[in-house]
Amino acid sequence: LQTKLPKVGTTIFTVMSQLAQEHGAVNLGQGFPDFPVPPRLVEELDRAMRAGHNQYAPMTGVPALRQAIAAKTARVYGHAPDADTEVTVTSGATEAIFNAIHAVVRAGDEVVVLDPCYDCYEPAIDLAGARAVHVPLDPATFAPDWQRVREAIGPRTRMLMINSPHNPSGAMLSADDMRELAAILEGTGVFLLSDEVYEHIVFDGARHESVLRHPALRERAFVVSSFGKTYHCTGWKIGYCIAPPALSAEFRKVHQYNVFSTFTPGQHAFAAMLRDDPAHYEQLGAFYQAKRDRFREQLATTRLAPLPVPGGYFQLVDYSDVSDLDDAAFCRWLTVEKGVAAIPLSPFYDSPPPGQRLARLCFAKNEATLDAAIERLQRL
Amino acid sequence: LQTKLPKVGTTIFTVMSQLAQEHGAVNLGQGFPDFPVPPRLVEELDRAMRAGHNQYAPMTGVPALRQAIAAKTARVYGHAPDADTEVTVTSGATEAIFNAIHAVVRAGDEVVVLDPCYDCYEPAIDLAGARAVHVPLDPATFAPDWQRVREAIGPRTRMLMINSPHNPSGAMLSADDMRELAAILEGTGVFLLSDEVYEHIVFDGARHESVLRHPALRERAFVVSSFGKTYHCTGWKIGYCIAPPALSAEFRKVHQYNVFSTFTPGQHAFAAMLRDDPAHYEQLGAFYQAKRDRFREQLATTRLAPLPVPGGYFQLVDYSDVSDLDDAAFCRWLTVEKGVAAIPLSPFYDSPPPGQRLARLCFAKNEATLDAAIERLQRL
Ligand SMILES: CSCCC(=O)C(=O)O
Ligand SMILES: CSCCC(=O)C(=O)O
Repeated sequence: LQTKLPKVGTTIFTVMSQLAQEHGAVNLGQGFPDFPVPPRLVEELDRAMRAGHNQYAPMTGVPALRQAIAAKTARVYGHAPDADTEVTVTSGATEAIFNAIHAVVRAGDEVVVLDPCYDCYEPAIDLAGARAVHVPLDPATFAPDWQRVREAIGPRTRMLMINSPHNPSGAMLSADDMRELAAILEGTGVFLLSDEVYEHIVFDGARHESVLRHPALRERAFVVSSFGKTYHCTGWKIGYCIAPPALSAEFRKVHQYNVFSTFTPGQHAFAAMLRDDPAHYEQLGAFYQAKRDRFREQLATTRLAPLPVPGGYFQLVDYSDVSDLDDAAFCRWLTVEKGVAAIPLSPFYDSPPPGQRLARLCFAKNEATLDAAIERLQRL
Repeated sequence: LQTKLPKVGTTIFTVMSQLAQEHGAVNLGQGFPDFPVPPRLVEELDRAMRAGHNQYAPMTGVPALRQAIAAKTARVYGHAPDADTEVTVTSGATEAIFNAIHAVVRAGDEVVVLDPCYDCYEPAIDLAGARAVHVPLDPATFAPDWQRVREAIGPRTRMLMINSPHNPSGAMLSADDMRELAAILEGTGVFLLSDEVYEHIVFDGARHESVLRHPALRERAFVVSSFGKTYHCTGWKIGYCIAPPALSAEFRKVHQYNVFSTFTPGQHAFAAMLRDDPAHYEQLGAFYQAKRDRFREQLATTRLAPLPVPGGYFQLVDYSDVSDLDDAAFCRWLTVEKGVAAIPLSPFYDSPPPGQRLARLCFAKNEATLDAAIERLQRL
């Protein structure tokens, strides 16, 4: 049995979570909160189940949820997608990314990705029979070099993938970036896939430049988000894709025969949350900013050098002052010997920048968890 | 934008459910129960959420659920798969079927399917760049003609798909079928994908011939099932795949980058149900047999001729005595004019047998629903 995906091993997130568990390390690796979901969310799920919403949801998603997503999008980004033809509910953002790729990318195509990038992009491209073309972000700022992106686009390019706020760096694309991108894509047939799962986790008064704000971009884009990050429930696996009708039609063909539909009671619960409790996502930036600031103050007492965090819930740290190990070896050592699990950056790259000494720490954690981690990191 | 899936339209199940709703028809079309899920299941889900099981499940599934599936499989089929390397939890059986195909089927391959078959098989094969080779089942008994299956297998055949109890007919494969199949596959590199979602809905003391009972078959098989049918919760979308370690490894590569993981609280709930309440699935056959028998008695008072139903929750009826319309037109007429939604068989075929006059009625319904349908069907 020859594998179709020779490059795929166990994802780094699983590897590090398992290692953390085996060694009793504080787990700041895999990105998930260790505090409870909003109590209201549990109540809404309960209500939906007890109301009998337990059979197949419509393939495209429960109408109330699609409408609530459209209304929220209009409120936040000033653009109202059509709930019937442009919004599709999926079993998490990962499924949405997979579907968008399989909807339009064909054997022999190329897809441009900006490295470092989330590790599900390339295997989905490979499975579609296409090839990922890697363009590095700036190793210090994680900003795109648009000239290099322009050069990477050729006759075989079917899609370009972006992600803001960015995992793993937290970097955010600016309005200028969006204009540059629009200029590059103008007149091409290249589709855009925008992974915006951290859309509500932005700091210091910054504004998230959703592709949905930009008409020249959204007309060719699949915009993907998820409730997992916004409602502290990464295990609920409900996400969505917003795309123009023609793109949504192709997206839905894949979704229909991939998972068909998504957990019905959960869709009703999120519809209620979006409709009745906008304060939740409006305050999410402030909630995480407090965690970020406290964590960064504490990190200043260690020998790890924190990079800026404009958005998301990850803190990159430069460990050059502590160790000469490469990042994979360092994170393993940090987990096993020092009791704090972190994620190395090299798995997010096709070719990691030589000599890069960065590790990713997740601060979506209780204060007690972060305190315990800091205590151990102070001993480095 | 040229579609990658030119044959795919809206699935017949959605089309008929929408038509039923628009016309106030009793919906015996799309297969889903209209009665509540077991109250215990709702309680277990509640307990799991409140216990804080809301973050990413392990990619392969919650260990307690994989172990419970393995234990149930051992109890029912006398074969204990290894929970760690052979059982993978998925977001419904549809995702499992999609993954199994994408795990091993390559561009240019052929996959043998037996018509009529469930409508998600061929689009998944198409997306993998392969070609479905259709072998018809016997139009009267829905039994496979193994000689024709043997002839359909050639050097490009990568996989054969079977489904027992069979949707739409309810036909079941026998132990003899399994032996014939094993003889055909022996010495070939052909994988088997066995869709067994109705495994616990079997009647008249019959035994479900799971592929898992047959060593010569299971060594090359992906066996797919789901909790949607067994626990009356088609909208919960939790299923699983059992396959030997080498096949599971490839399956998991696709799952990892397709949806990554499945709704965590639901996995805990099903783990508890399987562990503590085996009576539920043990009595499921009797539960549905009572519905089937009552419905068939009532159908005898109409001009529809019911075919035998060995398993599953669908009743095929021959409507030749009522109408000369083709099955699509008949089901539309029945829904719109007569107020009972049914599913035509032609969408389950590549080339439907000419002159076939069969419609599928779902009897996974309350007595009141079935009574209302019968009252309308008596007026035909
Ligand atoms: C799907 S596990 C990875 C979770 C995550 O988004 C991350 O840690 O980057
Ligand atoms: C996914 S909708 C179809 C449900 C079903 O299994 C059927 O009606 O055959």
